[in-house]
Parts: sequence; structure tokens; C-alpha cells
Amino acid sequence: MSVNIEKTDKKRIVIVGGGFGGLKLANKLRKSGMQVVLVDKNNYHQFPPLIYQIASSGIEPSSISFPFRKIFRRRKDFYFRMAEVRAICPARNMIQTSIGKMTYDYIVFAAGTTTNFFGNTRIEEEAMPMKTVSEAMGLRNALLGNLERSATCATEQERRELLNIVIVGGGATGVEIAGVLSEMKRYVLPADYPDIDSSELHIYLIEAAGRLLSGLSEESSQAAENFLRNMGVNVLLHRKVVDFQDHKVILEDGMEIPTRTFIWVSGVRAQSIKGFPESALGRGGRIKVDAYNRVEGMENIFAIGDQCLQTADKNYPYGHPQLAQVAIQQGELLAENLRRMEKGKRLKPFRYRNLGSMATVGRNRAVAEFKKVKLQGWIAWLLWLVVHLRSILGIRNKVVVMLNWLWNYLTYDQSLRMIVYARKAKEVKDREYREATTHLGEDLVADCEKKQ
Amino acid sequence: MSVNIEKTDKKRIVIVGGGFGGLKLANKLRKSGMQVVLVDKNNYHQFPPLIYQIASSGIEPSSISFPFRKIFRRRKDFYFRMAEVRAICPARNMIQTSIGKMTYDYIVFAAGTTTNFFGNTRIEEEAMPMKTVSEAMGLRNALLGNLERSATCATEQERRELLNIVIVGGGATGVEIAGVLSEMKRYVLPADYPDIDSSELHIYLIEAAGRLLSGLSEESSQAAENFLRNMGVNVLLHRKVVDFQDHKVILEDGMEIPTRTFIWVSGVRAQSIKGFPESALGRGGRIKVDAYNRVEGMENIFAIGDQCLQTADKNYPYGHPQLAQVAIQQGELLAENLRRMEKGKRLKPFRYRNLGSMATVGRNRAVAEFKKVKLQGWIAWLLWLVVHLRSILGIRNKVVVMLNWLWNYLTYDQSLRMIVYARKAKEVKDREYREATTHLGEDLVADCEKKQ
Repeated sequence: MSVNIEKTDKKRIVIVGGGFGGLKLANKLRKSGMQVVLVDKNNYHQFPPLIYQIASSGIEPSSISFPFRKIFRRRKDFYFRMAEVRAICPARNMIQTSIGKMTYDYIVFAAGTTTNFFGNTRIEEEAMPMKTVSEAMGLRNALLGNLERSATCATEQERRELLNIVIVGGGATGVEIAGVLSEMKRYVLPADYPDIDSSELHIYLIEAAGRLLSGLSEESSQAAENFLRNMGVNVLLHRKVVDFQDHKVILEDGMEIPTRTFIWVSGVRAQSIKGFPESALGRGGRIKVDAYNRVEGMENIFAIGDQCLQTADKNYPYGHPQLAQVAIQQGELLAENLRRMEKGKRLKPFRYRNLGSMATVGRNRAVAEFKKVKLQGWIAWLLWLVVHLRSILGIRNKVVVMLNWLWNYLTYDQSLRMIVYARKAKEVKDREYREATTHLGEDLVADCEKKQ
Repeated sequence: MSVNIEKTDKKRIVIVGGGFGGLKLANKLRKSGMQVVLVDKNNYHQFPPLIYQIASSGIEPSSISFPFRKIFRRRKDFYFRMAEVRAICPARNMIQTSIGKMTYDYIVFAAGTTTNFFGNTRIEEEAMPMKTVSEAMGLRNALLGNLERSATCATEQERRELLNIVIVGGGATGVEIAGVLSEMKRYVLPADYPDIDSSELHIYLIEAAGRLLSGLSEESSQAAENFLRNMGVNVLLHRKVVDFQDHKVILEDGMEIPTRTFIWVSGVRAQSIKGFPESALGRGGRIKVDAYNRVEGMENIFAIGDQCLQTADKNYPYGHPQLAQVAIQQGELLAENLRRMEKGKRLKPFRYRNLGSMATVGRNRAVAEFKKVKLQGWIAWLLWLVVHLRSILGIRNKVVVMLNWLWNYLTYDQSLRMIVYARKAKEVKDREYREATTHLGEDLVADCEKKQ
């Protein structure tokens, strides 16, 4: 295997990850005079804010995903490669990917985060995360499969396990999935599952901190909590999950909740790359960068978005929140700074403009905060819809999502409730293929150390 | 586990399979005074005529699937159970399913067919069938993954394997997938995959008989073949595939075609159930039935659709073609006959009304045949669109499919080109669960034999 990209006399910039930040950067580098290589492990950009609606059968993966090749169709000096970056050797300006080695003039890490299980391998094995479109599809299948099985299972014990849904993590994702599942319990279950007594379905939302949505104000947290409690969600605050055994979630205080639907949205850590000096990494594995998103001590290595930790912004001395807006603004500025660098101009430091944040809890129910205004209820909800619809890539996707939302709203239904796997499991082969390449990069790192 | 359905004083009819036939029957038994139990291994009805468009990234699984529980929402005396039927004991009016035993007063087998690999386990292992929504998703992932990999693979040999697509079976499905992939080659590849020389992508369609679409007239076969050849598909007739080894499809005459995209749509056999006397099965494992779709020699066991073989219809002495229309008409008549049976009235024998058949080959290209008319080209194509759109279940699905078609038509694109797996592979557990239940039914069969 080889990356198979010809090196021309143009400078090559490699962007690792096509999320909000990487995509914005790649877009802004159009006609920059550089050769742009985008590397992502998926062949599509995904839209994380709506992933929870995939899990709840409200929308399809394709409605919030967009193939990279389609985005950059017919663009010159641009290459997409579906691969994972394994290691970097800064001394040689080289990376090792799952499909081969590649040199760069500039490299930008925008690979985001992955789910953090805080070292508990049993939880990692058993819990279902919801960071990616694929994981959300797996969760949807599990949710629906467990409902079916609950109607026919052998024991009372098993039925309880199948009908308890435990969500760990009270951030936006946890709140949103709890909200939409409680609506499914209220509106869909009684109509479609006469075999199941809907009062036996229990939804638990567990948060270690003292309130939900810790990124928002106390007021919004309280509003979200009230919304959820009114909808029948068991919100447990100040409670820490420490283990999972025999289909039981185990809390620090000894409490046990039997469940076979164990959703883990409790925390993230930055994607890691071999060869990065430990000293360059900060809290949560995030790459420490200066005000220009340059990795400390490196000339031509950058990081943006959730993967980086930037403490130079005076309003955010402990780093920015890991939000789409930060990544987008950093991608945009970095594109400008790279052009400036090429021209030998002075660089502009990054300042985050907080455009506000929001979370939705259910039908007509959301919380939103802006500089001076806090909104709750249906106005916030409507605003949430508009903002998210605007941000989805592509007209087709916007129309399909809007149609689905309208439909779900009018019918009180999340109607895509099909259990579908991609069969003739070629994915297994892909996984083998991927595993066969995990050792890659060790050579480069060893080699690199010799050189230094 | 238990099926968990209370036996009331009403007669119980069990319908095995919710395809075209089973669904029609279940619908027509509304207010029949019987307890209706629908058993299907999926939790949704699927629409096979459009499955090939899932594989080609044109539409999503959810657009042509519909959850059974939604279809039968709030219907009285109706039960859905997601399960597979393992065995039957006619002497005791009992079946063994993957979720437990169940008795019946009437039972109707409408489980359709499965892909026939004609006993070649290597082909079964390696080839990708396209009978189900899940298989089509697996195929889509494989197609897209192979394209990506072809841009970076190590050897010339591997690239050839990745860029050859071999379709075995020249029936409607084979013709349709060949057509849509040739359009992808022409319109999508040059724009989105500048790394791939589209002239290196080769599509082979291999058929053992002397012509494509053997269910239609010679004239239509010829038209379809011409369409495909003009679009660059390598149509091989009178050629039989006998093996698959080392990424090579091997033909009877010794010809070898290297490929990693080996699509098998070459034949079907009826789903089999333990406990059925061998003598009750005919060609292709189909259950022999009389003019009333009753299994020969049985009072209360019926079979309809692709799974049955009915030779009493004088126009079809060798059995009906395995088409949706036959299943639908048989389901409809059987519902009527069951009501008649209950009232002690005379039963009506089945006569198939052939409403015509059609196949589409590409943009503005299809063939259609009715009693007196044969159509080709864009009129047939338009007709094909209308007929299929009408048959899709649910307004939401109709709208979404129409929107996708319109979009794809206008943009010359099949735009849902995302490689998505359902992660956190709960499906593996489901498969284990399923395998753990395969032995079920052996007891019942043994028991049943003792009794007889």
C-alpha cells in the first residue's frame, strides 16, 4: 500500500480529520496554492449534534452525513484518503497512516475526540457509546431488539434488564437522548407495543456532577432537569458509575441498576497519535497549542478543534469548550494564518466568539443561551431546529431532515424503527484489515527517536 | 423464553413471514374473528424490487422498509413476534420458533426464498447476495470500500481485483444492479474519484442461460442486453460460474475473472422448516400446495408466495413465477377462503392474473410487458417508476423515495455514498443468540415422529 499522491512543487498540507474544524479549513484553503490532503477514517463528514436522533430512529445516517469526495468534487490539488494516522515523526516531516507513509510541509490535527471510559475495560466492553453515526446505528438496533425481546423473554429478571435504559452522562447528548426516549415511551410504546406495559420501561440519566448541562447556566440546567423529570426520566445527580457486571450498572454508593441498554456518553478524550512528545499533551490528551493553533515547539504542526488545548485566549485560560463553533472558528482562522505565513505576514491570534449554546429536551422543549438572553421552552426549541437545519451540509440532507422532523412532529412518532445490520459481514474483514495495520507507525517512531 | 401470547377462545392463525403475501393476508384478516400471529425474523416489512438501489447508494433501507408494529398499530387480536420458525409438528398443531413453542389452528407459510448457492460453500462464503436490505447495505459498504482502497492498494493485481465487479445472474436484480453501477461508473466516478481511471472499472454480468431476463420475452431480453452493452457492461451469456478462489471467479470453461466485488443473484430456494415431510416439497424446496394453497395432505397448513409450488393453475402447470403479484393475489384469496372455511362454504381455486412484468436498466431505460403490449425505453421507465412508487408502503416512504429519485435523476448522482456499519457490534450477540437457538425444534421433530 501507498498513499499514492504525487508530490509536486506545491507545498503539501495534510489535514487529519474532516469534522467541523478540518472541513472548514480544507474549504478555506481553496486556491491557496497548496496541495491539500484530507485524511479521515470515514469516507464522509458527519454532523454530531443530531447523532442522538439516529439512535432514536428519527433520522437516517445519510441525512446527517456527506461523502467527502462529493464535497470536494472536481477541486484541484485536493486529495481525499480514507485512512487512520498512526504515528508522526516531526524530525522528518512524516506520518505513518494505515495505508502508508506520507510527508508533509504543514500538518493539522483535527481528529477530535473519542469516548472516554476512564480506564474501565468492563464498561468499555459493555457500554454503548454514541459518538459516531455507526455507534448510533448499533444503539438503535440494540434498543429495538431489546424491546422485541422483552415481550417474550423467560424471566422477570431479564424483562427488567431489557426494559431499563441507563444513560450515563448528563451533557447535551445525554439530556437529548433521555428526552427523545421518554417521548418514545409516551407516544410510541402504547400504540405499537401492546405487549409491553409502558410503565415498566424506566429511563435513568446519571450524572456525576451536581447538575445537567454543566456547560450552560444553573438556570438552564434546572429547566432541562425539570423538563426531563416531568417526562418521567429518573435523573440521578451526584452519582458516579464505577462498574458494569452481570447486566448491572454499579454506582459508587453501591446502588445497582439492572439493564441491557447501557448508554455511555459520559466523557471524551482526544484522539492520540504515536510519536507526539508526552509534554505536548495536556488535559484529556488534548494537544497543547499556542494562540495560532501551532503545537508548542513545532514550526509546521498545528491542531484545531476538540483535539487541541489552547490556553492563550484570555477569556478561556483553561481551554475552550469542546464545541463545533470553536473548531469552525479555529479552522477558519488557521486557513488565513497559513496564507499569511506563506506571505511572511504576521499571524492573528485566536479569540473565540461565543455565539451561544443550546440543547433540546423534547417536543417544544429546549434551552438556549446567548450573550444576554436565556431562552427556554418552545422558542428555544424552534431556534434549535433552525440553527441545526441551517448547519447541515447539502440541500438534499436539509430537505430530508426537515421532512422527517415535520413527520415525526405531526405523528408523534420516530418512524424509522427497523433493525438493520450490514450483512455478509465485510466489516469484519475491514476490521481485520485495520487491526493488521495497527503495528504500523512503530517503525517510524523508533526510527525517529534514533534520528533525534 | 416463551412466545407469550394468550390462547383465547378465538381460533389462532399463525402467518410465517411478512413479505408481500403474508402482509396482504394479515391485512385482509382484519375483523376475521381470528387471533392473528405474524412471525418474521425482521421487525419490518421490506420491498425487494428496490433493494438494488440500496446497494447502489440511491436510497436508504428505511425508505423501503416499514416496521410491522407500525403497520398493525392498535389492531385488535393481532400479535407480532420477531422470531424464526425452526420446526413444525403437524400432528400436534405446534411449531417451534427461536423464542419458544406455539400452537395454531391454522398456519400459513409465507417465508419466501433465500439465496441459492447450489451447494458451493466457497461461493456461499465469499459472494455477496442481495436478497435483503441488510445484505444490500453490506454490499454498498463493500463497493465503496473497494473503490477507496483501489486508489491506494499495493499492487496492480490487487487494483484489478478491486476495480472488477462481477455480477452472477441475469434476472431482473442482476440487470438492474449492472445498469445502475454502470451509471455510477459513467457519472460519479470521473467527478468524485479523480484517483481512479474510470475506464479501469469493469462490470461483468454473467448468465448461465442464453439470455437475460428469462421471465420476459426474447424481444425484451434483447433490448435489455443492448442497453447494458451500450453502457459498457460486459454481458456474458451461456457462461456458468463454478467456483471462487483467491479473489477469482472461475467459470466452467476455465475463464477466470479477478474480483473482490462478487455479487451473487443467481438463484433462490425456498426457506426450509424441519418436520415437513420430504414428499411435501417440490422443485427448489418449494412446498407443494393444491389450488387453495393448502399443503398436500394437510387440513390446516397452507403456503403462499415464493415458498409454495402450485401446479393446479392450468396456465402454470409447472408452478407460478416467483413474483410479488402472485404472492399478493394468493394472500388475498387465502384470506377469503379462510373466512369461507369458517362458514363451511366452498373454497375458490387460485388463478393468477398476470398484470405484466418489468425491469429497469438505467436512466430512461426499462422494459415492460403486458398482455398485449411490449414497451421499451423511457415510457417503460416512467411506468416502472410509477408502479413501484405506488407499491411502497406508507406516505413518508413514498415521498422520501420520490425525492431521492428526483434528486438522483437531476444530479446524475447516487448520493448516499457513506460507508456505515452498525458499531458496538451487538449484532454479533444477536447472531450468537440466534445460533444458540438453532438446535431448537429437534426435540419437537423427534417427539412428533414418536407420536405418529
